[in-house]
Amino acid sequence: MVIGGDGFCGWATALHLSNKNHEVAVVDSLVRRLFDHQLGVDSLTPISSIQNRIRRWKALTGKTMQLYIGDICDFEFLSEAFKSFEPDVVVHFGEQRSAPYSMIDRSRAVFTQHNNVIGTLNVLFAIKEFSEECHLVKLGTMGEYGTPNIDIEEGYLTITHNGRTDTLPYPKQASSFYHLSKVHDSHNIAFTCKAWGIRATDLNQGVVYGVRTDETTLHEELCNRFDYDGVFGTALNRFCVQAAVGHPLTVYGKGGQTRGYLDIRDTVQCVELAIANPAKPGEFRVFNQFTEQFSVNDLAVLVTKAGKKLGLQVQTISLPNPRVEAEEHYYNAKHTKLIDLGLKPHLLSDSLLDSLLNFAIQFKDRVDHSQIMPNISWKKIGVKPRTAPVQLL
Amino acid sequence: MVIGGDGFCGWATALHLSNKNHEVAVVDSLVRRLFDHQLGVDSLTPISSIQNRIRRWKALTGKTMQLYIGDICDFEFLSEAFKSFEPDVVVHFGEQRSAPYSMIDRSRAVFTQHNNVIGTLNVLFAIKEFSEECHLVKLGTMGEYGTPNIDIEEGYLTITHNGRTDTLPYPKQASSFYHLSKVHDSHNIAFTCKAWGIRATDLNQGVVYGVRTDETTLHEELCNRFDYDGVFGTALNRFCVQAAVGHPLTVYGKGGQTRGYLDIRDTVQCVELAIANPAKPGEFRVFNQFTEQFSVNDLAVLVTKAGKKLGLQVQTISLPNPRVEAEEHYYNAKHTKLIDLGLKPHLLSDSLLDSLLNFAIQFKDRVDHSQIMPNISWKKIGVKPRTAPVQLL
Repeated sequence: MVIGGDGFCGWATALHLSNKNHEVAVVDSLVRRLFDHQLGVDSLTPISSIQNRIRRWKALTGKTMQLYIGDICDFEFLSEAFKSFEPDVVVHFGEQRSAPYSMIDRSRAVFTQHNNVIGTLNVLFAIKEFSEECHLVKLGTMGEYGTPNIDIEEGYLTITHNGRTDTLPYPKQASSFYHLSKVHDSHNIAFTCKAWGIRATDLNQGVVYGVRTDETTLHEELCNRFDYDGVFGTALNRFCVQAAVGHPLTVYGKGGQTRGYLDIRDTVQCVELAIANPAKPGEFRVFNQFTEQFSVNDLAVLVTKAGKKLGLQVQTISLPNPRVEAEEHYYNAKHTKLIDLGLKPHLLSDSLLDSLLNFAIQFKDRVDHSQIMPNISWKKIGVKPRTAPVQLL
Repeated sequence: MVIGGDGFCGWATALHLSNKNHEVAVVDSLVRRLFDHQLGVDSLTPISSIQNRIRRWKALTGKTMQLYIGDICDFEFLSEAFKSFEPDVVVHFGEQRSAPYSMIDRSRAVFTQHNNVIGTLNVLFAIKEFSEECHLVKLGTMGEYGTPNIDIEEGYLTITHNGRTDTLPYPKQASSFYHLSKVHDSHNIAFTCKAWGIRATDLNQGVVYGVRTDETTLHEELCNRFDYDGVFGTALNRFCVQAAVGHPLTVYGKGGQTRGYLDIRDTVQCVELAIANPAKPGEFRVFNQFTEQFSVNDLAVLVTKAGKKLGLQVQTISLPNPRVEAEEHYYNAKHTKLIDLGLKPHLLSDSLLDSLLNFAIQFKDRVDHSQIMPNISWKKIGVKPRTAPVQLL
């Protein structure tokens, strides 16, 4: 059961698992598509409806996917989906996943935390009630850790203090209402593993780049979404679109912000590995899911170089940082557990950057230039609903 | 502004602050009284309506209290209260505060996290929007830390790891949906201090015992509530009522569960001290608010001894633990910051125990014996609403 199976990571994962002969159900409220309508933004790539995606997949491969359209915050809906599909594994992508979205206004902040925390609580109760052996594979985020001045470990830290030693949950310092919602999820899941014996894997994912996987390239109706706007777009993908349309690369502040990154082909591979090697009953297992670290400035340099090869003149500008975050900091995050399970990383290479840039160039007529600049401020967030962001943001 | 000012700690605090010549507003939805009706439980002491409490206080002392009745999860209500009262300090007790209540069923678990997390988010937004200099004094709980095998510090821990050092939020291991809700609050508040410059003090309170303060004893209409039931009652107060009515003391499991405890007269003193010594803008300050550590077995022995002096034959029984928690563990929690600010603790003494027991004896005809035993299991919590707990629990 892939919750959030119509989204950027979710759809690619659902396809990949189906291709690997898992019996797959997609559970999704499709609210991500509603956000696009409400904010007046759109995917760089044209995307088909989830119904047509699933029909096309069946036509191409003969493989069926179940589809449950509804909101996991509605427990009655979720119960019916569980009782009908009887999942052995739940892969849970079904959360509002944009930090800027969670910082638009009070109502979006509250929506994000309510939606993500209550949705995940409902999933935990559904597993306990209907499918106790079910393995929960939950998407967390590297952003839960923040940027501590010590090495980031995978979920836990062994601490010696005043002569005594214990292994404790790694301290969390999230820096948006979205990232905080995933911190809350992690604490809730850890408790239910201990109290109820739930088996769970938390995949603290880095920033995902790329768009194509082996499965999404099979047909244009299987094409994945590609966000480049200031709300849902993430660093590297945004830079590629900016380079393609001749917009300067938008570095926030000093550009020293360093994070873990991974190719979407590795996202689907990691989920597959987590499923193949499940957590034990009662175990709350945390993997840091990324393959390489880059600073924002590193990425700008890489895109500039790749652009040059394609004849693009790529400029970079530094914008006042709309976020509250350290712009120069220590960052060394461990990420060996998925490698130990067999992850073969697709490292960021010239050829991938070429192909991403060419992809952006292919669709550049679809780019809405007014959506490129960031317009959501961590400090200026207010209590009034910003309901008409085309004008207001 | 005392949010939750009609509750056990909130009412005592509102009275105390008013007595110390603070201008006080009580904000409360009165939902705690609704819980009593729904669960069929009641305070050992008869308590007056909040309206009569405030009228009586004015009649006795000439001091007025503003009253705002509404739900802080309703931001429109909270905004009006902020704009009308213009608080310099918000003391926030306005949360569902029972661990067993949060473990009754899925709907109570979800209610607890939604109510507490969203209510606190709204308070943070209201401070940012209407009262930026306002000091938030938030009631947390010692239960956020769990029972780690190292010393518990006050909110933060300095960690040296792989040759580098940082001071990070103390790792959290809460063990009920209620305790988890306060972990979530702590993370949210810390973020807003950093991002918006909110000034906040988190009072990680231990288990409160006692019932009377200088102010509540002035008149029977000012009397505080005293919970002895299995849902809202806390260890020492419950034991005193059990001893008074000849019920064996209900020790859960081995009884080695050790926690920090404090007298309710110290609760009100601690809040007063936090207000008098506010956090700086942007500071997220954490105090561990308790005065002594006891195991459950320690308390049983103390109550048995005190009962003997009053001619009571006190028995103790060990019940299967309805909670999931360590019953024998290391526990050493620091609590010096409030002492440094001037806290003069009321330590648990024979005379206090005598007076608590006599208090329980005075009201023993009001005790509903069917409410004494615990009937909420951490492991058996299910998804169906337990709407008629008189029969079902």
